[in-house]
Amino acid sequence: MNIGSTRNEQGGITGQDPLPSVQARLACRAGMASTTAGVANGFVQGNLAILPEKLAASFHRFCQLNPKPCPIIGMSDVGDPRIPALGRDLDIRTDLPRYRVWRDGEVAEEPTDIMAHWRDDLVAFVLGCSFSFEEALMAEGLPLRHIEEKVRVPMYRTSIACQPAGPFAGPMVVSMRPLKPAHAIRAVQITSRFPSVHGAPVHLGHPQSIGIADISRPDYGDPVPVAADELPVFWACGVTPQAVIAAAKVPFAITHAPGLMLVTDLVNRHLAVL
Amino acid sequence: MNIGSTRNEQGGITGQDPLPSVQARLACRAGMASTTAGVANGFVQGNLAILPEKLAASFHRFCQLNPKPCPIIGMSDVGDPRIPALGRDLDIRTDLPRYRVWRDGEVAEEPTDIMAHWRDDLVAFVLGCSFSFEEALMAEGLPLRHIEEKVRVPMYRTSIACQPAGPFAGPMVVSMRPLKPAHAIRAVQITSRFPSVHGAPVHLGHPQSIGIADISRPDYGDPVPVAADELPVFWACGVTPQAVIAAAKVPFAITHAPGLMLVTDLVNRHLAVL
Repeated sequence: MNIGSTRNEQGGITGQDPLPSVQARLACRAGMASTTAGVANGFVQGNLAILPEKLAASFHRFCQLNPKPCPIIGMSDVGDPRIPALGRDLDIRTDLPRYRVWRDGEVAEEPTDIMAHWRDDLVAFVLGCSFSFEEALMAEGLPLRHIEEKVRVPMYRTSIACQPAGPFAGPMVVSMRPLKPAHAIRAVQITSRFPSVHGAPVHLGHPQSIGIADISRPDYGDPVPVAADELPVFWACGVTPQAVIAAAKVPFAITHAPGLMLVTDLVNRHLAVL
Repeated sequence: MNIGSTRNEQGGITGQDPLPSVQARLACRAGMASTTAGVANGFVQGNLAILPEKLAASFHRFCQLNPKPCPIIGMSDVGDPRIPALGRDLDIRTDLPRYRVWRDGEVAEEPTDIMAHWRDDLVAFVLGCSFSFEEALMAEGLPLRHIEEKVRVPMYRTSIACQPAGPFAGPMVVSMRPLKPAHAIRAVQITSRFPSVHGAPVHLGHPQSIGIADISRPDYGDPVPVAADELPVFWACGVTPQAVIAAAKVPFAITHAPGLMLVTDLVNRHLAVL
């Protein structure tokens, strides 16, 4: 992968052989509005939360206090739609397939860009996403049911309370993957190496212990079956900020639409701490 | 810990301030014949298997093929009862509390030393023991039921077949510790750092999947209760060679008596690979 050959001296994208991640963002700018699952394999994708400056410090502290659901991998300056650390050409207003604009804790609209909503006081946070550790799990041959069944990963609101910060408080959201016990042990080892994309599981085996009454009825995403010889394994999920924005009835916020993520130029395997 | 001050120039033990591990071995030589659980905390304890030279190469290969139940931390030269790497004064014939002498796969006697059984063709193998990783688990505040209840850890023969080598073949034996799910995840992380003392668990959550029909009836050790919000977590166990010696009806072998281990001068925390 020769990054140099895909950029001119000003850091803009040239016509020749751009990175798959850059191609994905350019496609979003051109109107692509479908899931980014499977797009630009190998590149880090991120959850998005955009908040007005007066709430951003509290939200930043919320992420600091809750690093498993909310691992920050990049953030913008106030009013600046660029995040060069995640992609030099990146424009957070146009480069995701679809957004959610929240008013008073409710989704008001789901536009494909947020040019009309951008303001000089907004701060963008990009949080690590499970797509990164799923790549590592699949590279080791661990089967992932939702990918086999071509559905969204099931996600659940739990009875695990996030550490509150200012108005931000609420339940941790988790994603669930059914695994055979030996695979669950291996998955703990593999994902422990990736703390910036949710890290090790937060729970396995007893969903009712974390407030999940019915595993077949996820709060987000799609249900997948858990076989009798498998364990449901739960990871902290980057949808948590959306649950918290709803619970806190935040006056104004913008997020990604679940499953339709920001594709960055970071490389998944570079996130491994060991 | 100043090792220098406890030994004279020839490496023999002086009267002043010997290591707790040396004290433990001296106590065994003097007739101490009770469990080594809780003895010389911080020092590595080991499982013992002694075999005639004509079987030793096969047994060595068996350990090589089955490193989770049989991690070799030391071995003797043929006919030499010393293992200086584990303790310069160590005499494998006298330094354990109690031994098992096996004939044709049956325990023939359980003496407190094996001076009368030693032969010029014997080779001693010392294998890592769960006491080492239990220290690391307890140091992190993880409760261990069998220690709280002051009983031996429950152990089970499983349907997991060891890789065979020569006459050595049979089931993997595992030890079980009930843990809450978050503690089980942490225990996978902690014990993964200690591959030379069984490493990460081999199973958790579904005992019947590994051939354990009744968790309340262990094949070795004592039963402990598993609460409704806990998972039984299973580690490969150094008693496996004894199950294999019995299954293979080996003509002659000597092992430790379960729970009455060799105390070495190695330090548990030095076994951590990360």
